[in-house]
Amino acid sequence: MLNFEFKNPTKILFGKGQIANMAKEIPQDAKVMFLYGGGSIKSNGVYEQVKNALSAFDVVEFAGIPANPEYAVLMEALNIIKTRNITFMLAVGGGSVIDGVKFLSAAALYEGDEPWDILKNSIRTEHGLPFGTVLTLPATGSEMNSGAVITRKETQEKLSMGGPGLFPVFSVLDPQVVKSIPKRQLANGITDAFTHVLEQYMTYPIGALLQDRFAESILQTLVEVAPRVIKNPGDYEAAANFMWSCTMALNGLIQKGLPGDWAIHAMGHELTAMYGIDHARTLAIILPGHYNYNFEAKKEKLAQYGQRVWGIQAGTTEDMARQAIQKTVDFFHSLEIDTKLSDYTPDYEGTAEKISQRFTERGWLGLGEHKKLSPHDVEKVVKMSY
Amino acid sequence: MLNFEFKNPTKILFGKGQIANMAKEIPQDAKVMFLYGGGSIKSNGVYEQVKNALSAFDVVEFAGIPANPEYAVLMEALNIIKTRNITFMLAVGGGSVIDGVKFLSAAALYEGDEPWDILKNSIRTEHGLPFGTVLTLPATGSEMNSGAVITRKETQEKLSMGGPGLFPVFSVLDPQVVKSIPKRQLANGITDAFTHVLEQYMTYPIGALLQDRFAESILQTLVEVAPRVIKNPGDYEAAANFMWSCTMALNGLIQKGLPGDWAIHAMGHELTAMYGIDHARTLAIILPGHYNYNFEAKKEKLAQYGQRVWGIQAGTTEDMARQAIQKTVDFFHSLEIDTKLSDYTPDYEGTAEKISQRFTERGWLGLGEHKKLSPHDVEKVVKMSY
Repeated sequence: MLNFEFKNPTKILFGKGQIANMAKEIPQDAKVMFLYGGGSIKSNGVYEQVKNALSAFDVVEFAGIPANPEYAVLMEALNIIKTRNITFMLAVGGGSVIDGVKFLSAAALYEGDEPWDILKNSIRTEHGLPFGTVLTLPATGSEMNSGAVITRKETQEKLSMGGPGLFPVFSVLDPQVVKSIPKRQLANGITDAFTHVLEQYMTYPIGALLQDRFAESILQTLVEVAPRVIKNPGDYEAAANFMWSCTMALNGLIQKGLPGDWAIHAMGHELTAMYGIDHARTLAIILPGHYNYNFEAKKEKLAQYGQRVWGIQAGTTEDMARQAIQKTVDFFHSLEIDTKLSDYTPDYEGTAEKISQRFTERGWLGLGEHKKLSPHDVEKVVKMSY
Repeated sequence: MLNFEFKNPTKILFGKGQIANMAKEIPQDAKVMFLYGGGSIKSNGVYEQVKNALSAFDVVEFAGIPANPEYAVLMEALNIIKTRNITFMLAVGGGSVIDGVKFLSAAALYEGDEPWDILKNSIRTEHGLPFGTVLTLPATGSEMNSGAVITRKETQEKLSMGGPGLFPVFSVLDPQVVKSIPKRQLANGITDAFTHVLEQYMTYPIGALLQDRFAESILQTLVEVAPRVIKNPGDYEAAANFMWSCTMALNGLIQKGLPGDWAIHAMGHELTAMYGIDHARTLAIILPGHYNYNFEAKKEKLAQYGQRVWGIQAGTTEDMARQAIQKTVDFFHSLEIDTKLSDYTPDYEGTAEKISQRFTERGWLGLGEHKKLSPHDVEKVVKMSY
């Protein structure tokens, strides 16, 4: 097991009706900005619940943070934060709204001229403007971590940021929101969380036995509840386990003491930036090729995953590892998630070369747990996804 | 799954050499009290490492906090804290030292006349004097939670306390300390952590699927590493997984969304108070009788535990549940932990009646996950442990 530091100070309010309990977590004299996305919260009752919970505060609303939170839109919000002297933000939405608010948390206290530098130069945020979240779409885990991914259409870029100042002060997780989420988004959320776990787990054995079992616990739970959630999002027990699994998949716990991979995300982000493909689906596109290309390096963990999560009982390490990849693809297909780039766009020729070139330009010369996956390797992996 | 709130702000510094990194976690102008137990830290190198790490601070030492931290000793420390204007404490030791420091954290800021009232009247501590810990004995989980148990010889009492103000600011977990722990203490630590998980898990199915799997993960890891740790405490990988399992067993995570039992602890504490039996061993004494006495209420979870942790593959729910109890007893025996009160004292007659009477006097009229285990039931359970 590798040495690690772990601290996660976010307070979770989990369960039915918890939105009503969040006012006690916000400073009484706060000047609050309430940020959300496209307005689905107005049809599912969340907007009203939030308004009621915030009734004692001075509140400014900011609507319209899009999926893949767009820098230009966030800069409008930043302007209002500064002119209206906002002291606390409340993000109500999925990972995009929460990530957007994390950028604002950092940018509001950033002393440089150009907030994009936080992303471009990977500036770590030690202190941010405090914020809470109300999660309406389980998937990214952003509600209990300190990372964010921001998109800039102008340059077709999608970059990440983070730092200990960007943990939400609190996050409200009411699984009742799941019942009004469209099936496509549920499938995306399950796929996203599942891949988050795999990015942290599917490397090589390093003796972090408990963390391995925790990771497998999340995968097993997602496999168990996925068909129930898809069939009936109003199944509270399934929704609650789906929601808590998504949060635990990326709140820092399971990655401590192990190397991480994250190359699937790096490649997947480019597919979203280039083609607008849903984030989760880009992961399902890249994953099988990535695991097959890096098979020798990952086969022990693939076999362990196959045995413990999928119940594969016999075979050589190689056999079990190959079966485990196939089981994963089958799982994505069971969620109606396509796993080939050509399923999403007819114009895929040249994608691999373009991504490889971008990584070279950014100096991303060694990805993955061994920091050895070169832009040349990336080109081959992406081609395997066509 | 039940509604829950979860927040655990303790920062963990885990791994080889982490004691040297703790100075950055203590306020620069702190007036530090460094508290420890019987002096084993002077023979295993931890004392020197701590002294070096604290070299930049004004430090007062307080040695001699005993196992089952004694109120009278702690009151001496409290006096020094007040007269020397201590602003930060560092607990270096196992659960007893850490629990003792938690009491001091609460008592230092307590405004009443008699600090024992914090325990007697279950006064919740919202704000305590800040403290960090260096764990030298994995077992209780106190290094990452906000609870403590304090003993008062004068009245043969052992009572618990807690509150959000009692989380350590940081805890240093260096698994290298394990190699110098006596075998008896290692066995106690494994048994203590194992039972902590069972107290939270072994109730009735409530649909907290992920929490169940996390609990099972800790149990599986402890079963896997226990023989390695006992055979060779210098096995770093085994020691690291043992240490992290003990912390995760009682840091709040696995209990969220479920009912807890904790009746085994309530009864076990009395055996320590009456006979001075090691805490962990009292749990092993009470557990089998408790599960057999409450078999109908717990059999579904017992069977699940038997299947997932012990690999029991066939049988009725009742069969698998009975086998699971036996497997647990066998596991304790494999650690050379005796499971009958008569193994520890010849004077056990009347113990059950005495504990039952104490619980009646304290108004503890309904223990366990259903709050239905009466003093009469307690008497029967304790008798089953003779």
